[in-house]
Amino acid sequence: MDLDTSSSPVPSSSLLPQRCGKSDELEEAHDETAPGPRSVSRNIPSGLLEKLVYDALVWCSLHGLVVGDKGVQRSGTDPGIGLVHAPFALLPMPFPKGHWRQACELAPIFNELVDRVSLDGKFLQDSLSRTKEVDAFTSRLLDIHSKILETNKTEDIRLGLHRSDYMLDAEANLLFQIELNTISSSFPGLSCLVSELHRNLINHYGKDLELDSRRVPGNTAVSRYAEALAKAWNEYNNSSAVVMVVVQTEEHNMYDQHWLCTLLREIHGVASVRKTLAEIDAEGQVLPDGNLLVGGQTVAVVYFRAGYSPNDYPSQSEWRARLLMEQSNAIKCPSISYHLVGTKKIQQELAKPNVLERFLENEDDIAKLRKCFAGLWNLENADAVKSAMERPEFFVLKPQREGGGNNIYGDNIRETLIRLQQDGSEQAAAYILMQRIFPKASLAYLVRKGICRQDHAISELGIYGAYLRNKDKAIMNDQCGYLMRTKVSSSNEGGVAAGFAVLDSIYLT
Amino acid sequence: MDLDTSSSPVPSSSLLPQRCGKSDELEEAHDETAPGPRSVSRNIPSGLLEKLVYDALVWCSLHGLVVGDKGVQRSGTDPGIGLVHAPFALLPMPFPKGHWRQACELAPIFNELVDRVSLDGKFLQDSLSRTKEVDAFTSRLLDIHSKILETNKTEDIRLGLHRSDYMLDAEANLLFQIELNTISSSFPGLSCLVSELHRNLINHYGKDLELDSRRVPGNTAVSRYAEALAKAWNEYNNSSAVVMVVVQTEEHNMYDQHWLCTLLREIHGVASVRKTLAEIDAEGQVLPDGNLLVGGQTVAVVYFRAGYSPNDYPSQSEWRARLLMEQSNAIKCPSISYHLVGTKKIQQELAKPNVLERFLENEDDIAKLRKCFAGLWNLENADAVKSAMERPEFFVLKPQREGGGNNIYGDNIRETLIRLQQDGSEQAAAYILMQRIFPKASLAYLVRKGICRQDHAISELGIYGAYLRNKDKAIMNDQCGYLMRTKVSSSNEGGVAAGFAVLDSIYLT
Repeated sequence: MDLDTSSSPVPSSSLLPQRCGKSDELEEAHDETAPGPRSVSRNIPSGLLEKLVYDALVWCSLHGLVVGDKGVQRSGTDPGIGLVHAPFALLPMPFPKGHWRQACELAPIFNELVDRVSLDGKFLQDSLSRTKEVDAFTSRLLDIHSKILETNKTEDIRLGLHRSDYMLDAEANLLFQIELNTISSSFPGLSCLVSELHRNLINHYGKDLELDSRRVPGNTAVSRYAEALAKAWNEYNNSSAVVMVVVQTEEHNMYDQHWLCTLLREIHGVASVRKTLAEIDAEGQVLPDGNLLVGGQTVAVVYFRAGYSPNDYPSQSEWRARLLMEQSNAIKCPSISYHLVGTKKIQQELAKPNVLERFLENEDDIAKLRKCFAGLWNLENADAVKSAMERPEFFVLKPQREGGGNNIYGDNIRETLIRLQQDGSEQAAAYILMQRIFPKASLAYLVRKGICRQDHAISELGIYGAYLRNKDKAIMNDQCGYLMRTKVSSSNEGGVAAGFAVLDSIYLT
Repeated sequence: MDLDTSSSPVPSSSLLPQRCGKSDELEEAHDETAPGPRSVSRNIPSGLLEKLVYDALVWCSLHGLVVGDKGVQRSGTDPGIGLVHAPFALLPMPFPKGHWRQACELAPIFNELVDRVSLDGKFLQDSLSRTKEVDAFTSRLLDIHSKILETNKTEDIRLGLHRSDYMLDAEANLLFQIELNTISSSFPGLSCLVSELHRNLINHYGKDLELDSRRVPGNTAVSRYAEALAKAWNEYNNSSAVVMVVVQTEEHNMYDQHWLCTLLREIHGVASVRKTLAEIDAEGQVLPDGNLLVGGQTVAVVYFRAGYSPNDYPSQSEWRARLLMEQSNAIKCPSISYHLVGTKKIQQELAKPNVLERFLENEDDIAKLRKCFAGLWNLENADAVKSAMERPEFFVLKPQREGGGNNIYGDNIRETLIRLQQDGSEQAAAYILMQRIFPKASLAYLVRKGICRQDHAISELGIYGAYLRNKDKAIMNDQCGYLMRTKVSSSNEGGVAAGFAVLDSIYLT
């Protein structure tokens, strides 16, 4: 498919938001998009390019823009060994100022929406009742949610650290939401460093590059996230309690998390501990007063950087830990309700006509949200299914299954839809159709494992939001910073874009 | 040998300073010392120890306290890949405040001494005439020195970045100089970070450890070295010229160097380039006006982080490069004269009676230098040789050969001396006898490759000095910071202490 020849691809139907599984992995980036080059040529002379890459690699090494190297043993468990620079784009990706502002303005509205929806337990259970039958993971989450509902337990202090991801459709010139992460929003630490890296490079080479570092927006994601965690910890009001980071047993993106915890400690004096779900099961207990104790320490805030994927629950032990935390009075970031609001199905329900109106009053806010919703349909929508069968190149078929990387494109959409019709409707509840977004591809320099390659690439912009409330007291509802991810856009028609995502920042145009 | 039973081991004779080959390698630490534990027990409870080690490893990763991992390909050539934390001691080593002050006060005196001696070309040539016959490396350096002398070329702007290394003898309670590095003094960057690491750990765990972070002296080595390079660059007075760092083809300690160059650029706006000796031979030329051009860029300052070892000159190409630089008007750090002042033989000559007086006027300064000189003798000193044959455990036999790690101890001293007497005196000129220093061993926690081990360890304190002069204008003559290196002291009698050195800082007592 050639982007230059396609007209506005949106079939007329309801425009709904869409979410998909999230991951802490850079290289499993989303793929809602049609590939295909549309180069904004920015060739850098080879001598200058070499200097830029070398300086950038040094900068990463000295400033902690690093990840664990999967090729080195223990690099996902032990800090300090097997380090490699995080994959990054050499220069920021151009992005229009208007759309940047639009994305930033949406953050507090989405924060508020998540909170409102989380309070409507019946809406969550009803909307997910069919998904529950076909998706075991969502089913387990719903079981925990039910148990909590039965006890009439309320979460007085609610903390959300969300990230809403967008792509800019080149044809429609519209910003579309790809997904809203309500659990384990990754890269608040490293994304800030990439912005700093780009500003530094432009400060030194900007004249040759004809770039101005002031056009790279400052990124405060990590300090604002630390602030949000500290404020939540403060509301819990127990000076000896800690923030507990729920981690995977192996985590090559650990330094992103360490940056956040380092700021939490150095700026706010709040201690954190890292525990896997299995460790929490083994060491955790809820006292009669509701306090969560893990390894003898009272937990004020549970901050999930694991638990979003079925892979994080290999045994009953992990599910017990999840339930235990939910039953405690610790502040969960996110609570089971916040987590469920982030499922694909709930987002699709939310975006049906007149549903947003059940949760939000402000018409301007509702209009702003709707404007960024791409077309989203369940497979009961016969018109949408018919369109997708006729023109699959304009759609993405997404399974509810968490974890990302399972999206279906092109002729495979047609085949899958035919199979689902034959099998009967049961399995169809596990899928959602989404309008395919066509971002503009730009020429970019992507650096990975110390090697720079030039390629056509497309980008996805994530906006971090933080929300904190204690009963009627609204404490924080802010846009906090951003994550730009850029990946190679392969030119083969209709296929899934091959390649990897790297960290990037934006250059306002 | 048991340290507790030995009386003052110094045979009466002239007390001379002693130098030996230097290296950018941490793990090839000097070994002038008798091993043997004398523990200052500082056992840390295991739960606390685990936290300290974890936090320290995270801190290293986020703050650039890293080296290239020799186990990973390209880690010695390409930045950003194959990173591992630098080996470090978990906590600072106790060190008496009086001896710390003494070492700091010596820095400007040694700076001045090096400069004065460097101006006496005949003294250097004469003193090294016998060494020249038995040491090919020193011989090549002398050839370059001769060529420069013949042209009556003077160095108006002279920059020295030295590091004088000391050990504290436990029996004599005296600070003895081990060596004075006049070329490629390593670790100005990483040593500062270790001080910061230790202060950070003590700030967080000081109460449990009963330590006070204010007792860890601040370390300004890297910023003062950057300042010295910038000031020298400024004296050269050509705003488009660069600082050229002469590097080895493979350098796992590159981040130490990158820290210095980063500060040079970020604080002083001075650009640097990295070149191997072979590259300088291929790309370099001296213009008729004396300017050094390498790769088309004018070089204001040549900063050597290679060229101190015979291994750095595998072919004639590298020697041509060394001569070319010396013939130019670029500021050499060090010049060939400064380099020669740092040879073992010159230091031994300097420390003979009435030799310091030829170069320095101030009697207090001379007394201060003498006080830190260990016993040093050439093998023409029959009394010294006799003492060493009888009591080899009180001596170290050092070959002039550069590169470190070649020192001879214990019974091997006796055997070598016998062999040298049989061979005739020619080869004896390649050796120097030095009094052996007996530092106190303390219990320390050494962290390497992510793993912490507790052991008895001894330490060596290096004091960085910077010296800059332009003809009669003295611009800088300062103590700049410090390097503490700690290594395992094995308990086997008389043998060379097995083990490795790690970066450390000091805790003033």
